[in-house]
Amino acid sequence: MRPVAAEEVGKPAPEFAVVEQDGSVVGFVTVDDVIDVLIEEQTEDILHMAAVAPGAMDKPYFDNPIFRVVRKRIGWLLLLFVAGTLTSAVLHRFESELAAVVALAFFIPLLIGTGGNAGAQTVMTVIRSLALGEVGVRHAWRVVLREATTGVLVGLLVAPVAFGQALLWRAPLELALTVSVTMFSICVWSTTVGALVPILAQRFGVDPAVLSAPLITTLVDATGLVIYFTIAKAILGV
Amino acid sequence: MRPVAAEEVGKPAPEFAVVEQDGSVVGFVTVDDVIDVLIEEQTEDILHMAAVAPGAMDKPYFDNPIFRVVRKRIGWLLLLFVAGTLTSAVLHRFESELAAVVALAFFIPLLIGTGGNAGAQTVMTVIRSLALGEVGVRHAWRVVLREATTGVLVGLLVAPVAFGQALLWRAPLELALTVSVTMFSICVWSTTVGALVPILAQRFGVDPAVLSAPLITTLVDATGLVIYFTIAKAILGV
Repeated sequence: MRPVAAEEVGKPAPEFAVVEQDGSVVGFVTVDDVIDVLIEEQTEDILHMAAVAPGAMDKPYFDNPIFRVVRKRIGWLLLLFVAGTLTSAVLHRFESELAAVVALAFFIPLLIGTGGNAGAQTVMTVIRSLALGEVGVRHAWRVVLREATTGVLVGLLVAPVAFGQALLWRAPLELALTVSVTMFSICVWSTTVGALVPILAQRFGVDPAVLSAPLITTLVDATGLVIYFTIAKAILGV
Repeated sequence: MRPVAAEEVGKPAPEFAVVEQDGSVVGFVTVDDVIDVLIEEQTEDILHMAAVAPGAMDKPYFDNPIFRVVRKRIGWLLLLFVAGTLTSAVLHRFESELAAVVALAFFIPLLIGTGGNAGAQTVMTVIRSLALGEVGVRHAWRVVLREATTGVLVGLLVAPVAFGQALLWRAPLELALTVSVTMFSICVWSTTVGALVPILAQRFGVDPAVLSAPLITTLVDATGLVIYFTIAKAILGV
């Protein structure tokens, strides 16, 4: 559905009066203005979610100078890069385990990718529910519990698939077990983090909409690798 | 800004008449209905972007049965998992290179993470511009060229940072060079793919809004690894 501006069909646009406390009218806002603002806000929200700074789409697509577009994107990209260097630090820390079982590396993108996706699903659901006023900071624990439960169920469904995929790639049984247990743990962890972070943001007065899915993904990447290697050490004894 | 329903302030809601071609009125749509639809559509779009199937938030947050929530999430999660197994295949293929230089693994999450983020920025910008009618299939090459140029500029800014970070982690000069050249190439590649995919979807009658950022991220993960190891072979001679 696409609302048509009243002017386009030759009718005056319906208006909302803007009134002072005492009832005196200070101006009018047309319905079209309201809809324009909703669409603009939606654009900002969508770009936020993809880690693009506000104002990147103030003008129609081709009218935004390319250097301005780059400026609106590079900040988050560098910030996420710096956060992402944590993953290098984690892998550096587990270098000997990685050297002993190179096959551990095969599953890194798959594990952190799935964790990032599950986290993104939760964080967007929670951010939207906060924006619509369906949940608030007072529901913090209920939301976290609910999302963690979703993570448990999702994890129980994905873990066996991961187990099968690892065996298909001729991974030894212990490695396949490591991968599937990690998959389950990362699903629970990423949904928990994905619920907790936007609620904490709201609690401390930060607009949860500025938390992008990429931010959660990056956070889950590094912590997910710690989970992976911890489980690998326990199961494989490397 | 938050629109207040007319009823809430005790006024009748402004209405739009729905008319037949001959001008006879068949019914009325209130402004509040229009705004409700905009908000509902926005919720669907946002969830799509996080790879959640439609209808997952038809009811207020706590009223959606948890098994229904899981069902709305697991499909995309498994699909992305299957697409993600390509990354294992790529790493398997380059096992000997990985075994020769274990340090190559350190930078995998960082490289594919940045590629995924740059791709997500582009795909959301393009999807939104398509939705607002600012670009169309006829602009395909201009959009791809523009996003690829953005990728070149972003890559030129991120690559030196990646070079420095690799040296900081005591990577040999050749490895640091490999990482930074890959970072640049992945930025250009992911923005190109991020522009091309939604336009191709539109061209073949698929709603670009169903293309989630996670889908692009997953696509860029596997192809990004091929780029990484190809550059590594060329520079390191492994």
